[in-house]
This record gives sequence, structure tokens and C-alpha cells, in this order.
Amino acid sequence: AIDAATLMARLQRLGEVGRGADGRLIRLAGSEADGAGRDLVAGWMRMAGMEVTVDAVGNLVGLWRGGAPAGAAPVMLGSHIDTVIDSGIYDGCYGVLAGLAVIEALQAAGTRLSRPVALAAFTNEEGVRFAPDMLGSLVYAGGMAAEAALAIHGTDGVTLREALTAIGYAGDATPGFLRPHAYLELHIEQGPVLEHEGIAIGAVDRLQGISWQSFVLTGEANHAGTTPMAMRRDAGLVAAQAIAFLRGRIAPRGGSTLATVGTLTLDPGAINVIPGMVRFTLDLRDPDEARLAEAERGFAAELQRLSEAEGVSVESTRLARFEPVIFDAGIVAQVEAAAARRSLSCRRITSGAGHDAQMMARICPAAMIFVPSRGGISHNPREFTEFRQLADGAAVLLDSAMALAR
Amino acid sequence: AIDAATLMARLQRLGEVGRGADGRLIRLAGSEADGAGRDLVAGWMRMAGMEVTVDAVGNLVGLWRGGAPAGAAPVMLGSHIDTVIDSGIYDGCYGVLAGLAVIEALQAAGTRLSRPVALAAFTNEEGVRFAPDMLGSLVYAGGMAAEAALAIHGTDGVTLREALTAIGYAGDATPGFLRPHAYLELHIEQGPVLEHEGIAIGAVDRLQGISWQSFVLTGEANHAGTTPMAMRRDAGLVAAQAIAFLRGRIAPRGGSTLATVGTLTLDPGAINVIPGMVRFTLDLRDPDEARLAEAERGFAAELQRLSEAEGVSVESTRLARFEPVIFDAGIVAQVEAAAARRSLSCRRITSGAGHDAQMMARICPAAMIFVPSRGGISHNPREFTEFRQLADGAAVLLDSAMALAR
Ligand SMILES: NC(=O)NCCC(=O)O
Ligand SMILES: NC(=O)NCCC(=O)O
Repeated sequence: AIDAATLMARLQRLGEVGRGADGRLIRLAGSEADGAGRDLVAGWMRMAGMEVTVDAVGNLVGLWRGGAPAGAAPVMLGSHIDTVIDSGIYDGCYGVLAGLAVIEALQAAGTRLSRPVALAAFTNEEGVRFAPDMLGSLVYAGGMAAEAALAIHGTDGVTLREALTAIGYAGDATPGFLRPHAYLELHIEQGPVLEHEGIAIGAVDRLQGISWQSFVLTGEANHAGTTPMAMRRDAGLVAAQAIAFLRGRIAPRGGSTLATVGTLTLDPGAINVIPGMVRFTLDLRDPDEARLAEAERGFAAELQRLSEAEGVSVESTRLARFEPVIFDAGIVAQVEAAAARRSLSCRRITSGAGHDAQMMARICPAAMIFVPSRGGISHNPREFTEFRQLADGAAVLLDSAMALAR
Repeated sequence: AIDAATLMARLQRLGEVGRGADGRLIRLAGSEADGAGRDLVAGWMRMAGMEVTVDAVGNLVGLWRGGAPAGAAPVMLGSHIDTVIDSGIYDGCYGVLAGLAVIEALQAAGTRLSRPVALAAFTNEEGVRFAPDMLGSLVYAGGMAAEAALAIHGTDGVTLREALTAIGYAGDATPGFLRPHAYLELHIEQGPVLEHEGIAIGAVDRLQGISWQSFVLTGEANHAGTTPMAMRRDAGLVAAQAIAFLRGRIAPRGGSTLATVGTLTLDPGAINVIPGMVRFTLDLRDPDEARLAEAERGFAAELQRLSEAEGVSVESTRLARFEPVIFDAGIVAQVEAAAARRSLSCRRITSGAGHDAQMMARICPAAMIFVPSRGGISHNPREFTEFRQLADGAAVLLDSAMALAR
């Protein structure tokens, strides 16, 4: 059985790594805090007798052979430990530390398996510092060359290579060095569905498509008091109109398309100067690829129209684009069966967030397990899942992993 | 006659003070660069034989007695030398340095006057670092206590007192220590009217009302991928909708009301996090007080409506509020007469920008002189006025000052 008390204590301990004097938890990928978090997790892996390897893009992989025949492909569990800005303590860390608890439970029970169990903490899943998100698992799954990933500049201008080198996590192993038999990731839902329906376990059978873009609009800085409205080339105004259009037309309340503008900066940024430049990002999502592509097209057309009307020019950059993923039906069914055996309520669910499982699904059968998030709140310090629910999720992970590795 | 070549050389010299390695001129009020600029101007005042005084809020005042009877109230010329971010070299500096050129011309001609001539460089006219704008002249004119002004925090958190102390410009004199007989300010128009009509001189007879507010909207940070559109409390969206409303309804193209949102920041500011908080400023202007008040009311009501619809709370702070000002009819007529004597085309004009003259009008007859701004561009490095036009403006300032001081 899972030692849920230890799992909880570790979650809270890791949740203090990167917490500032102002109480905010910020452990961005490749930061000093990320380095300290990795040290902690790698130490726990070693204490559990695992072989720890770091690959070229900093993915941290622990392997427990567990007496399995040499050459057998491992069952891999995992997630990430990087966080957003002002984060909660569960996102990602729960999946990694529950995976560790699963391996320790198997060891304690003296379980003999026919496959090793591996545990991965992938680099830069959140995508807040480096885009795209799920970068470490994308490279691990062969979707991007390690060299290309290492050359990506973070929001602070530092490259991933520089950041990983600075914290001692630019490893030697080739990403993908262990090819898994299957990949299973436990995660908090981060959305409201399970709590709303009073269900303990989500068997995640698909994951929606994600489109990330950044935009730079250039108009003309001018005096707020002397420039007639008709002569303005206000870049900030165009961004505002485009954001209002997103809610009005592309992603209205009630629809399946999601649209978020999470970053926006005005230049020069003075109270009495018309903003001559604006930079902002757009996160678009939809479980349906055709609708996602249509949202991208619709936004681009309206942004063009609004910009022309104001005499503002548009530059756009694609930061990430992942099509919707369908998870492995066999593993999903195993998760459902594991929940049933523990008398836990369970439903199939689509993931709104991106996850490393989405990348790993490119190279092996993969699926995910969700537990409820109170109020559906995530990427926020109020992110919360009850201890009981965390323990239930870890138990389902244990049973499912055993079924896969037996 | 005015030594226009020296005026031009000094403008360019002062325009290099605060220019960064990236070529941008930033000489915010109370900054190190502002200190260096003040040192330069104070040195030129002293070279011209003026008595230089710094008052408690850093206003720099030079006095040339010119043989006038003791006790005669001076004619004051002036403007400011602080700049916006990424500024041109003319805004403010032209008025101060042309005033200096006027005094030097009077000295060179051996003119005997019945009044001294004073020259002021007021603190924080731009309002970019400390709000309200025209802060130094506001205090000089008795509209705010020096202690209250010194306690104002800049956008960087530093108080005006700390900033002035750091650059050695927290002076001893009581603001308002010289009560002028009249105040006259020469300035670039910063708008397109004079250039568009091919007119050399603007006799500024009024100045529009200015309203500055800052807003903090608080919703809830949450995950961009998992939060259904209907459950969002997106503070950034509400700000965007409100900005779009400003252009649509409060300040449409062609109207007299001007609306500018020049600063806006999202928090936490990550690509995949719904912004839980937004801070922005609003600059509203109108030559008509009733219309300005109506714009404030209309915006507040719509912001409230939009915020309630999204479940977002609103806090607003008034940063500056100045009613429209009518300048002294006698001085305006003198400016027109001076232009006519020099065969310069002239029209009456309303100032769109705030100016120190607007504050000085509270304690003495005041008016302003404008020269054209190419393309109407200001608060922008492309701000430009031709040498010939600068010289013409300074000549009209000389003649008008002589008429006032004779
Ligand atoms: N699970 C999670 O929050 N991933 C971050 C990537 C995203 O979905 O924005
Ligand atoms: N003249 C000038 O640009 N003043 C700054 C204050 C304002 O009008 O915003």
C-alpha cells in the first residue's frame, strides 16, 4: 500500500523550495529553485535505490529494476516539478512524488515484476519560462532535437542550455535513452469537473489541442493630450479590441474553445503616452483540431482588420502547437478497472491542460489519472486537493502500474 | 536679438543628458539624469549672472534683477526639464533654454526694465514618475502643500523627497517665494494644428482639462487550459473590454474627448495563466469641463458593469484632476501683437498638453506661446521643430517678456 503520509510530507517539503519572502512559490524551469527541487527529488530517488540519470535537456529519470529480466522495457511513471509564477504545490509534483511512493510500495511489498519501473521528472513542462511547454518530454519523445531545445531563449533572455548548466542539470544521456513499454501520469485535474460531479478518479482518455502564439503590434507613441483621436496609431487599443473580440466571438462563455491572454506589455508604458508598441501572448485550446485551427484563423483575420483600421503593423510568432491527443484505450480501461476494484467512482475525462503524457504518447501507449481540484483552481496558490483524494489517486496509480509491469 | 545658435546648441547638449546606450532619452523627474540636467541648467543661469534658488520641491529658479527697483514683482518665464520615457529633446527644455536666451538678449542689449525677470525649471512636469503632473508648479502656486508632494511615491516606489535628496535638489526656499507679476511659457505645440495650417506662432488662450486615474481590477488567476470560459474571472479581459469601450463610446475618432491607456500590467503574467489582476492608468482630457466629467462618469459606469459581469472587483485612484484653464486675455493679446510686429503668422490655440503655466495661472496672469511640432509628434524621439521656428518662438517670447517687464 501507498505511504500517503510520506507522500504528503514530501509534497509540502518540495512546495517550500522556491517560496519567496513574499510567500509566493516560483520554481521556473532551470532556475536556482528548480535546481534545489531537483536535488531533493534526485536524493529521494537514490534513497529508494534507483539509478538516477540526467539527459541532455535536463530530464531527470530514476530507474528501479526490481528484479525484472534484463532488456525488458520499463513502465514509466512521471510528470514535472517546474512551476508557474505564484504556484500551488500539487501541479506536476504530485505525479512525480506519487510515482516515487508507488515504487517504494512495490519494494516494501517485495513485489516481483516482469518490467522495471522508471520515474521521470521532465524539464520545463509549464512553458512559463521557455516555450513550448512540455519541452523536456517533447525532446524525450523525439519531437524536437536536443540542440534546438537547448538554444531556446527564456522570457528572461537566458537559453535553456545556460540555465541547465548553471544549476548542474545539463546531463550526458541522450533524451529517449529508455524507451518505455508504457507511460502513466497521475495529476490533479486542475479543472472543476470531478469535484462538481463528486467523482474520485478521472480516467483521462484525451487531451485537447494547444496553440500558443506571441504578437508584437507596432503603432506610434505620441502625446496623450495633443494627439486627436483620429490621428492615433494606438497599438494597445488594437490589442484590447482583439482581446474583447476573443471573448465575444472566438471563445464565448459556454463554448469548447478556450482563449487566454496571460501576458501583455505596453511600450513605452507611461500614463500620458499613447502606447506605440504592445507585446502579448495568446493561448488557444480546443479538443477538436478543426475548431482550434478555425479559432487561430478567425483571430488572425480580425487582428489584421483591427490593425489596419488603426494603422498598426502585426508580427506574430508561433510558440507551441500541439494537436489533440487520444490516449491508449487499454491503459484507460486498466485505470477504470483499478478504480473499480478500490470502489472509487471514476469517469472518463478530457484533459484541458497540456501534460508530458501528451508527448510520451508519441513513443509508447500512454494515459493519465486525474484527481479532483477544489474549485477547479490551478496555476494559483489556492490550488488544493484533499489528502484523502491524493491517497486514492496514488493507490490507483499503484494498481495500474502493477498491472502494466506484471 | 536672441542668440538662436546658442539656444540650439544648449538644447542638443541637454538632450544628451539621460540618453542610454540604446539611444533612448529618459530623464525622469528626480533621477540621476535629471540631477545632471539641473546642474547644467543651473550652471548656465549662474554664467548669465542670475541668482539661483532651489525650493523645497526642487523647483529651480534663476533671478535676474536687471536694475529694476527693489521690491518689483518679477516677470517669470519657465517650463521644465524632466522628460518622458524615450523622449525627444524639445518638450519643456525649449521653454527653459529660450527663457535663458531672452534674459541674455536683454542683458546684451543693455535693456533697462522696471521688473526683474525670473526663469523657472519646475519639478516633475511630465508626471511619468510622480503623479500628478505639473507637480512642482502646482506646489509653487499653492495648490498642494510641499510636504504632501514630497511624500508622493513614484512608479518605482521611491518618494519625491528621497529622489530630490539623492540628487541634491531638495532645496530650502519656500515654494512660491517669488510671486510673479506675470508668467509666460514658450513650448512646442506637441500637436498638429500649427503645422497643418502653416502658422508660425500659437497664442495659447486656453488649456484643456486633465483627468488621470489608476485602476486595479481583481479577478482570479487560474489555468488557461482547464478553466471553462463560463467560470473565468479574467481581470485582463475586463480591462481590454473597457479600453475598447473608451474608443467606441467615450472618445471616438473625431470627438473632442481624448482617452489614453498608456500603462497596463497583468499579474501573474504567464502565458497559460488567466490574469487574476490588472493595473492600468487612464488619461482623459477635454477642453470642456462638463464633457470631461461626463467621460469620467461614463467610463466608471461601464467598467463597473463589465467587472460585475466577469466577477471582478474594481479599485480606482485619482492621480490628477485639473479643470480647463482660460489664460490671461491681456498677455494673449500681447503675444499676438509681438508676432504681428515680427510679421509671423499667429492664431489662438487651445493646449492639449498640461503645462506649468496652467498652475501658475492660479497666482498671476499667465499665458503661453506655441511653435509647430512636425507631424504633431511628441513624447516620442521623433519630436521635432525646425531651427527657424524655434528662433521665431524665442523672438516672440523676448518681445512679449519685454512688454511685460517694461
Ligand atoms: N499541467 C499543466 O499545467 N501544464 C502546463 C501546460 C499547459 O497546459 O499550459
Ligand atoms: N507638456 C507636456 O507634455 N506635459 C506633460 C503633461 C501632460 O500633458 O500629460
